[in-house]
Amino acid sequence: MIRSLFFAPANRHDLLTKFPRFRADCYAIDLEDGTPEGDKDSARARLDEAVRMLRGVSLQGRLYVRVNEASSKHYIRDIEAAVLCDIDGLIVPKLESRDQLFPVDHAITRAEAAQTGRRRIEIMAGIESMRGVIDAVALCAAHPRITSAFFGAEDFASDIGARRTRTGDEVLYARSQVVLAAKAARIIAIDQAVVEIRDDEQFRRDAEKGRDLGYEGKICVVPRQVELSNEIYAPTADEIAHARELVAVYQDAMQRGIGTIDFKGHMIDGPLLKRAEAVLELARQLEARA
Amino acid sequence: MIRSLFFAPANRHDLLTKFPRFRADCYAIDLEDGTPEGDKDSARARLDEAVRMLRGVSLQGRLYVRVNEASSKHYIRDIEAAVLCDIDGLIVPKLESRDQLFPVDHAITRAEAAQTGRRRIEIMAGIESMRGVIDAVALCAAHPRITSAFFGAEDFASDIGARRTRTGDEVLYARSQVVLAAKAARIIAIDQAVVEIRDDEQFRRDAEKGRDLGYEGKICVVPRQVELSNEIYAPTADEIAHARELVAVYQDAMQRGIGTIDFKGHMIDGPLLKRAEAVLELARQLEARA
Amino acid sequence: MIRSLFFAPANRHDLLTKFPRFRADCYAIDLEDGTPEGDKDSARARLDEAVRMLRGVSLQGRLYVRVNEASSKHYIRDIEAAVLCDIDGLIVPKLESRDQLFPVDHAITRAEAAQTGRRRIEIMAGIESMRGVIDAVALCAAHPRITSAFFGAEDFASDIGARRTRTGDEVLYARSQVVLAAKAARIIAIDQAVVEIRDDEQFRRDAEKGRDLGYEGKICVVPRQVELSNEIYAPTADEIAHARELVAVYQDAMQRGIGTIDFKGHMIDGPLLKRAEAVLELARQLEARA
Repeated sequence: MIRSLFFAPANRHDLLTKFPRFRADCYAIDLEDGTPEGDKDSARARLDEAVRMLRGVSLQGRLYVRVNEASSKHYIRDIEAAVLCDIDGLIVPKLESRDQLFPVDHAITRAEAAQTGRRRIEIMAGIESMRGVIDAVALCAAHPRITSAFFGAEDFASDIGARRTRTGDEVLYARSQVVLAAKAARIIAIDQAVVEIRDDEQFRRDAEKGRDLGYEGKICVVPRQVELSNEIYAPTADEIAHARELVAVYQDAMQRGIGTIDFKGHMIDGPLLKRAEAVLELARQLEARA
Repeated sequence: MIRSLFFAPANRHDLLTKFPRFRADCYAIDLEDGTPEGDKDSARARLDEAVRMLRGVSLQGRLYVRVNEASSKHYIRDIEAAVLCDIDGLIVPKLESRDQLFPVDHAITRAEAAQTGRRRIEIMAGIESMRGVIDAVALCAAHPRITSAFFGAEDFASDIGARRTRTGDEVLYARSQVVLAAKAARIIAIDQAVVEIRDDEQFRRDAEKGRDLGYEGKICVVPRQVELSNEIYAPTADEIAHARELVAVYQDAMQRGIGTIDFKGHMIDGPLLKRAEAVLELARQLEARA
Repeated sequence: MIRSLFFAPANRHDLLTKFPRFRADCYAIDLEDGTPEGDKDSARARLDEAVRMLRGVSLQGRLYVRVNEASSKHYIRDIEAAVLCDIDGLIVPKLESRDQLFPVDHAITRAEAAQTGRRRIEIMAGIESMRGVIDAVALCAAHPRITSAFFGAEDFASDIGARRTRTGDEVLYARSQVVLAAKAARIIAIDQAVVEIRDDEQFRRDAEKGRDLGYEGKICVVPRQVELSNEIYAPTADEIAHARELVAVYQDAMQRGIGTIDFKGHMIDGPLLKRAEAVLELARQLEARA
């Protein structure tokens, strides 16, 4: 479960040390966009130190590293440095082809073989370019190590030459295609960032829209967004009560030979039962973690 | 023409006997979601009796049977029972691959060979899962017996983990892809159900949106929706008058060597003429049936 | 750069002579929808005369000819006549397969070989049918002579049986797919026409939506739309000032080792910098032409 994916630049140890203050489901140490070109080499050199520091304070939640994109000179070095650290996963941004995963798989396989008992390293795919969106279905299913994917609306908009708006209609097609690709591949789907960092209303609206589409969590660029995302991507008490009642009423009807019922003005049958059960299952998982 | 596709559970003969009261273009006896698991075998055993009853009262409109999905233990049995009945078609829900149609085609071919002069059995494809939506273009064109397809938004939403909203933005991508796939395959496209069964406004809004997208009819889960759907999926008197005038004015202009005209503030040329002619053709068909 | 693509019927020399009055980036002499069937042969016979007339008055902007669709009897004749004229490009409407480009490529290659020093003839692809939209990604990349593509919403709506609305939700999927296909093929993407020719508000709204999606210009069916389109598809003074400030502030931050900044309430990193730079580049190009 990744309701919140929180990024901080790899060159900013002052910010990385604050990770434990926030309750993100997944933290990303960012060697890519967050770290300026001139600082990438030194940030990579201090990556292991940052990971050890965070493991030393028993950071809750997954810990990932975002490497630079495949076309950059940093890609291979980033991967090789990251797999030596005690991390849970690698984020591959702007994924555009299966081939780009070869060095990742190679490095992870070697690192896992070299050290028995270490954490298995997962891959999160960044789908955030025109080519990535076009081939999203294939990319999300491109490798068994991929356990999640995010849609990067800002990078996609820059690539296609779009302008971002508050409703997000300009990325609805791409955002819909990516969530479909990810869920069809049975991996976690993580929604786009909201760059209006002081606008809670905009974040809520955007996060609710992503959740409606089937996303399970969201990129967060400031701590406040982690709080909001964790809240929005968890069912409310009302939703849980509604789901519980629906399941009970429907099961009762089924036993009386009735397969479709009128529940509070809604015609309920198999698919709506399934959705109510999914709400209850998510609530159970969240309770088990709390 | 299928403006309205009306479902009733196969185990509810009390409801099936009411079919002739409603003016659906297509009726579906539902062995799938509408019939609880415990009643599926007995409902199947009484399928022929239900069909005979409906034929006995000269039901107008097509009569279809919806079988259970291919992954269920009922699939083959449902198909084999249904093709022995005097029906017009089989509805295959959650269609995800061409292979799932082999037993359907086999059973229909055998049934048609065994009984000369019987109705030909058509297939309606249910596109209502992530895989179905991804492969919709191929699925709608997968077999010459497929003459129609519907988009099942509730099942799709359950599969992808979406939440349904009143505007339906969360399924706009999938709904658009399915209508495109169906129409490109030259088959009838039937739009999603509205589960808010006492909310005429919501049904109207949703049906109009589907019609705007190119759908030709709608799933109906209560009799009232059949009335509404038949109305919304037929051109109004105003639309017919407008189309008639447009065609006349445009044809007159064409004869004077003018290929684009200003008709009431709209620039009219080939494609808009074609659309006006389609409105008139639909009106003619409806009148011929009345 | 094609902010405005202005069409006039090939059989209306009275309208073609007015081309120089408007400031379109690209003009299209239309043998297809704009010219009635009975006038197509004579319009084709006078095509060279029309082009010479326009070259004689030193028309600014590209000059294209739209031929009839591949399935018509006019296709080959139109192509053969057009490539003999001093034009910049051919518009192939309703493009549905790579094969349809064979005669175009053949005729252009022959014409270019026969006359050294002549203008190279580009192809603009019209994506405006169900099959065209389905295969848009392949079609936009189908031939190296294709340098631009437009999405034809009216023809697409007629083909799929859609109704056009003011918001355009009914074509959002197709319009999004075409701009993605075109931009991914690194060609210019031109947006749909607005047939409400006396409704500036509707044109503005529709043009802004297209621009937000990534389109770079728009089909114009009356001169007034050329003015509006040129304006809407150019950055405003405010946008240029904002982009300039963003780039300056971000570059300063980068030098201080900071890769993400809070710029007026927005979190800025790589992709937003890239977008600001694109605004400035477009402004530079427009200034260089003025």
